[in-house]
Amino acid sequence: MSESLFVGVDLGGTAIKVGLCTADGELLRTHEGPTQASEGADAVLSNIAAYVKELVAPGTPEWEAVEGVGIGIAGFLNIPEGIIDFSPNLPFKDVPVKRIMEEKVGKPVKINNDANVAALGEAWGGAGKGVASCVCYTLGTGVGGGIILNDRLIEGSTGMAGELGHMSIVPDLEAIQCGCGKMGCLETVSSATGIIRMAKDAVARGDRTALSLIEGEFGAKEVIDAAKAGDEAAQRIVSRAAFYLGKSMAAVAVVVNPQRFIIGGGVSKAGEYLFSQIREEFHKLTPDHAREGVEIVAAELGNNAGVVGAAGLFLRA
Amino acid sequence: MSESLFVGVDLGGTAIKVGLCTADGELLRTHEGPTQASEGADAVLSNIAAYVKELVAPGTPEWEAVEGVGIGIAGFLNIPEGIIDFSPNLPFKDVPVKRIMEEKVGKPVKINNDANVAALGEAWGGAGKGVASCVCYTLGTGVGGGIILNDRLIEGSTGMAGELGHMSIVPDLEAIQCGCGKMGCLETVSSATGIIRMAKDAVARGDRTALSLIEGEFGAKEVIDAAKAGDEAAQRIVSRAAFYLGKSMAAVAVVVNPQRFIIGGGVSKAGEYLFSQIREEFHKLTPDHAREGVEIVAAELGNNAGVVGAAGLFLRA
Repeated sequence: MSESLFVGVDLGGTAIKVGLCTADGELLRTHEGPTQASEGADAVLSNIAAYVKELVAPGTPEWEAVEGVGIGIAGFLNIPEGIIDFSPNLPFKDVPVKRIMEEKVGKPVKINNDANVAALGEAWGGAGKGVASCVCYTLGTGVGGGIILNDRLIEGSTGMAGELGHMSIVPDLEAIQCGCGKMGCLETVSSATGIIRMAKDAVARGDRTALSLIEGEFGAKEVIDAAKAGDEAAQRIVSRAAFYLGKSMAAVAVVVNPQRFIIGGGVSKAGEYLFSQIREEFHKLTPDHAREGVEIVAAELGNNAGVVGAAGLFLRA
Repeated sequence: MSESLFVGVDLGGTAIKVGLCTADGELLRTHEGPTQASEGADAVLSNIAAYVKELVAPGTPEWEAVEGVGIGIAGFLNIPEGIIDFSPNLPFKDVPVKRIMEEKVGKPVKINNDANVAALGEAWGGAGKGVASCVCYTLGTGVGGGIILNDRLIEGSTGMAGELGHMSIVPDLEAIQCGCGKMGCLETVSSATGIIRMAKDAVARGDRTALSLIEGEFGAKEVIDAAKAGDEAAQRIVSRAAFYLGKSMAAVAVVVNPQRFIIGGGVSKAGEYLFSQIREEFHKLTPDHAREGVEIVAAELGNNAGVVGAAGLFLRA
């Protein structure tokens, strides 16, 4: 077996997923196990090493073909040195992950932040396969992003490139404060959290909406379902989320001029109902030369984007 | 003489400027002459060749050290093939400039659009010297832009990267249509044209302003001077131009996360009065990690940015 292989690791707060990829971004298989974050950093890193070796048995020709192990992590990272400065969901503070993991697995290790890694996965092996320049949005609890230009992940001078959820885009009069401390970030209106907040506001305001009949908590899915079923208050909320996504893509289009936008995350499951509104706004605001031929498509890899992108760090970062 | 040299050409509608640069982006000397656009494309290209050979005499060791001739051009270009598809100010339609110029000067030729080239000049040999990632704004008749990441000019999938003047940034209720056909572009408020338009609107509306006392036409400079002198209507106009510039930089900061913003063009001569307001807005809207250490500075090369950047196409594009 001479073809190069790459292992990707998606290090989450509760589970660690590992996957084996070809040099073309094809995911051959995955494996996972618990993070056991409460056991401390060294235990977590030993778990990663164990799961990697369960994925590919050391000593086999396949193991010999593995050129490196990439790890996607949520947190503040020193990417060139491979150090986790701080992670909100893991017991890591100033941990030299690259050095420790290289000792544990005996292969080169690279780390990068989880949003960049998921974007790279989609661009390399998912909805952007074969397209050199892609911009990815992940609409979940927050709005994550990542930018791939000429087949390379853009990290930015302090690792903040592609932090699309923190584009200040809502005008002052309507803006609320984001978790980052700034006003009017895209994340405040286009994340699942933002959609739920706007829906709760509508219910609290006494707007006429079926959402007011739901007992207990509801999620973004319920708001989107209500909008699709014709609930006007819910429609206004989803349209607002779509409007600012389209507006942010129009801004991105004249900054880096990608060929494709890829949208993933829970909110993207709204499908064409959401996508058609995003496209409409994007088309309205983007100059022809930056708009023609640009596609806005759904992510394809789902929860596997992280492991594929982490593996891709060796070829595309 | 063994050190590599590069020639840059700034091809304008009335004048052609040529310059000789070192591999470090140092401009050794310039030369210029009339474009003679009315004589047709071949005459213009022959003029370029003549001015290049007057700048560096063929047959000399210096001529031998010249590795290429870069040309910055306003228009729609096929950059990889070196063809001018169409230029608004020149008699060029589907002209294979690269091929013709390589025959005329016997050196490799590259072309790129004038805004990208000016940005590259500032980033490589001007206010961005030694800084790997810079974003440049040129505030003139329009708002031009250019992005340099990791020492490389970003062109985008259709050459529209860095078209910062066409970021749709003014909210719908206050937006006017841009020359590009879209609503609310940065250029409509932050270019000299935009500033003059807002000032004329203020005068027409009967706002109390010293600008209403100016006989005949006035330019952006008069508006800025009035603002500095305490004219409140003029201050609102310049602040609006600065507000949207700062807001667009905050957006750019979370897309490509540069180390430095460089602002040139006629309007930038307003100096600290303008810059301090841009910085204030940028600081207000940009997440800390994308803001700390980022500088917003004035361009340094003035009218030479074009020739320096054109020369730089051989090392940085």
